[in-house]
Amino acid sequence: MSTNDKYDFGMIGLGTMGRNLLLNMADHGVAGAGFDKDATKGAQLEKEGTGKKVKGFSEVEPFVASLNSPKAIMMLVPAGKIVDEVIEELLPFLAKGDILIDGGNSHFTDTNRRVDYLESKGFHFFGMGVSGGEEGARKGPSMMPGGDKEAYNVMKPILESIAAKVDGAPCVTYIGPGASGHFVKMVHNGIEYALMQLIAETYEILRNGLKLSDTEIHGVFEKWNEGRLQSFLIEITRDIFTYKAEGTDHLLVNDIKDEARAKGTGKWTSQEAMNLETPIPSVDSAVSMRDLSKYKSLRTTASQLYGHSDALAVDKDAFLAVLEEAYFFSMIITYSQGMHMLSKASTEYKYELKLNEIAKIWRGGCIIRSTFLEQIYNAYSKDTNLEHLLLDGDVKDLVLGALPGARNVIATAVSAGIAVPAYAASLSYFDNFRTKDMPSNLTQAQRDYFGAHTYALIGKEGVFHTQWMPK
Amino acid sequence: MSTNDKYDFGMIGLGTMGRNLLLNMADHGVAGAGFDKDATKGAQLEKEGTGKKVKGFSEVEPFVASLNSPKAIMMLVPAGKIVDEVIEELLPFLAKGDILIDGGNSHFTDTNRRVDYLESKGFHFFGMGVSGGEEGARKGPSMMPGGDKEAYNVMKPILESIAAKVDGAPCVTYIGPGASGHFVKMVHNGIEYALMQLIAETYEILRNGLKLSDTEIHGVFEKWNEGRLQSFLIEITRDIFTYKAEGTDHLLVNDIKDEARAKGTGKWTSQEAMNLETPIPSVDSAVSMRDLSKYKSLRTTASQLYGHSDALAVDKDAFLAVLEEAYFFSMIITYSQGMHMLSKASTEYKYELKLNEIAKIWRGGCIIRSTFLEQIYNAYSKDTNLEHLLLDGDVKDLVLGALPGARNVIATAVSAGIAVPAYAASLSYFDNFRTKDMPSNLTQAQRDYFGAHTYALIGKEGVFHTQWMPK
Repeated sequence: MSTNDKYDFGMIGLGTMGRNLLLNMADHGVAGAGFDKDATKGAQLEKEGTGKKVKGFSEVEPFVASLNSPKAIMMLVPAGKIVDEVIEELLPFLAKGDILIDGGNSHFTDTNRRVDYLESKGFHFFGMGVSGGEEGARKGPSMMPGGDKEAYNVMKPILESIAAKVDGAPCVTYIGPGASGHFVKMVHNGIEYALMQLIAETYEILRNGLKLSDTEIHGVFEKWNEGRLQSFLIEITRDIFTYKAEGTDHLLVNDIKDEARAKGTGKWTSQEAMNLETPIPSVDSAVSMRDLSKYKSLRTTASQLYGHSDALAVDKDAFLAVLEEAYFFSMIITYSQGMHMLSKASTEYKYELKLNEIAKIWRGGCIIRSTFLEQIYNAYSKDTNLEHLLLDGDVKDLVLGALPGARNVIATAVSAGIAVPAYAASLSYFDNFRTKDMPSNLTQAQRDYFGAHTYALIGKEGVFHTQWMPK
Repeated sequence: MSTNDKYDFGMIGLGTMGRNLLLNMADHGVAGAGFDKDATKGAQLEKEGTGKKVKGFSEVEPFVASLNSPKAIMMLVPAGKIVDEVIEELLPFLAKGDILIDGGNSHFTDTNRRVDYLESKGFHFFGMGVSGGEEGARKGPSMMPGGDKEAYNVMKPILESIAAKVDGAPCVTYIGPGASGHFVKMVHNGIEYALMQLIAETYEILRNGLKLSDTEIHGVFEKWNEGRLQSFLIEITRDIFTYKAEGTDHLLVNDIKDEARAKGTGKWTSQEAMNLETPIPSVDSAVSMRDLSKYKSLRTTASQLYGHSDALAVDKDAFLAVLEEAYFFSMIITYSQGMHMLSKASTEYKYELKLNEIAKIWRGGCIIRSTFLEQIYNAYSKDTNLEHLLLDGDVKDLVLGALPGARNVIATAVSAGIAVPAYAASLSYFDNFRTKDMPSNLTQAQRDYFGAHTYALIGKEGVFHTQWMPK
């Protein structure tokens, strides 16, 4: 695009993601300048981009000066204070009409604040979730831009060119006003946490319940990835079960410590779901299990007191078939919870989200991409006002088909002492979701009993209070 | 105490809790003045307190003027902005050295802020959790004061006189610095949410799994309350299953809508546990199920698509015995999660909590009081550095004794389609807690695969990154 010596696009933060996005752009004829205080990162960019029009800077002023006007700059830096610091560093060098994009995982409330701040100063700013990790950034990510639509439209050709494509359609679309882009990316990550937890529980069942070898575990995920469970996360799990530790004959995954780390987006999703009063218990369970994994020494002591799980006394092949059903069921429930949270947020924050479009751009490039997202896309396209994914007729048939397997796997694991928190949370959610009369009438009676919190009656207007205590 | 015309103690907010606390004080010779903008509340106080030295005010100035100096005033108003507004209204009439107490359910971060603000102005201020509901306030609550120790010591005689007593010991003690009082009360409420959810699930099993009549359900809770499950929440549940709707022959609880409300303290506990990275999945499940209960119309539609749970094909009496074990097991796990969260917060926020003292003051007056709290008190008294309740030898024996019942009940309910989210979350927590090697090594491998987030190795210092993708 650039016809002069200047660059079309600026990137702040030249970690793997930042560099790869610039290289991806360069492949599509977009000349990219990158800034990172660490000069070795800029050098790395230029080395990786040999033969492409990319350049690294370690000073802000020449970096900004190298860009064509109106300047378009994306920040890809860790969420939090650093984003604000970068903005303050940049502002003196920007002119009205320049476009600033926050492509990191900022908390949506921070993005709201920055939208107001930068708008008041006359700059175009939008928050954009970028998913796909290293590889996605290089070959085609899924992108969720929200906020300043005018600025998005300026950037649209570039973003569409670098995005992942599914059936020719780019995995990027304008999400909605305000911080909706970062909000949708946050929920994407919450779903990601839950799916990863489900895979971890599956692995636990395979290795300690069915006592499968690593090769057999690889075979399970390989097979799954060829069927309706096909997805990026199953695919990389398959790969992980072939990767040997250097110079050894055993798998690297077996050498890795079982303490899971997190960058916070899963936690934010759970915390925000509680604020929105939209339950996503599968995600919650994933967050709490990452936390529990950190207490290695407590767990080691407890294992000496309480023993361990038993091998499953089941027919291996038959059980693998029901396990596939259990994963399929729980995966659907997980996506359903996430989509429901999005629809609630759309109402609450006036995001006017198009859930079918969101499912569409998640089909490629991003971490939660899967064959099943096509079904979600279809469900919300057939009925753009669909209140909940589980109410779609086709989804219903899939759920009912896989349900017996889910019940079987969970009951079997529970009996054998294998922890299946995300599987169990998904099923409990489903079983309560399909319950017309939950036992919460008792909860309300208790609250009124001890705290005079009042209750509502079936078929009668008003709130009521009773002196429950026996005389 | 008062030997003049003035009052010893002032209460702002004359809802049931505020009035009852003043009447409780008056029973112990403490003359109480109450303020509420709604003058009918003051009148109600005086009517209920006929013959006692209590007086109601609806103007701030005469209310404050009616108190002996140094003045001691407690606020019992809804959490949030109102507390700040009340403080601003009061300040002009207070002198240095006066004592202000926030007895409501303020978020501990708000309390931190108010401590700094009021200290800077020379006032004594402390936050105090008060539990026990209406009845506790009147006859003896459990109180959790934290912050200004000097001010607490001034109030100590009054607070000890009105507190619930267990074996002669008052259910109030200085909790620790800062907002620790409100923090401990928040976690108390989180535990309360989880126990209530466990009881709701029990109710669901009894009515829809075992098809018991209300009278039989009453009998179950009555029996439970006479054994090791004895607790306030089981006791009031027993009572609720005797209370008939006025002028009818059926129970009131059956007329109550199954949409559970919440005032936020359970949600705060879950959100804060995620910040502290201390898992409390039993509480999380209770929060999410209260939320799910609000989607009545979605649930009604879903019930038509997905059918309902089955009756349990079990021997009733035998199953009731294992159900008692399941509740006992899950109750222990719930308390364990709460205590663990407190110990983490104690380190993180330098609260120096004495967990045995906290268990001690929870034995009476409060909503989560139970016979089992004596065991918790003993465990943390034997070893004041106990890292986790489940590591106590006596608790271990109880847990292992009840564990088979928990597995049986959950597997049975899961198979029959009865939702048991809190039961299942408690068991999953336990099963992972006692697992030396969680499957989280796979989670770390996945994170490194797609996001270059690095991983740690067993027995090797440092962080590592691998190019996992097959060539």
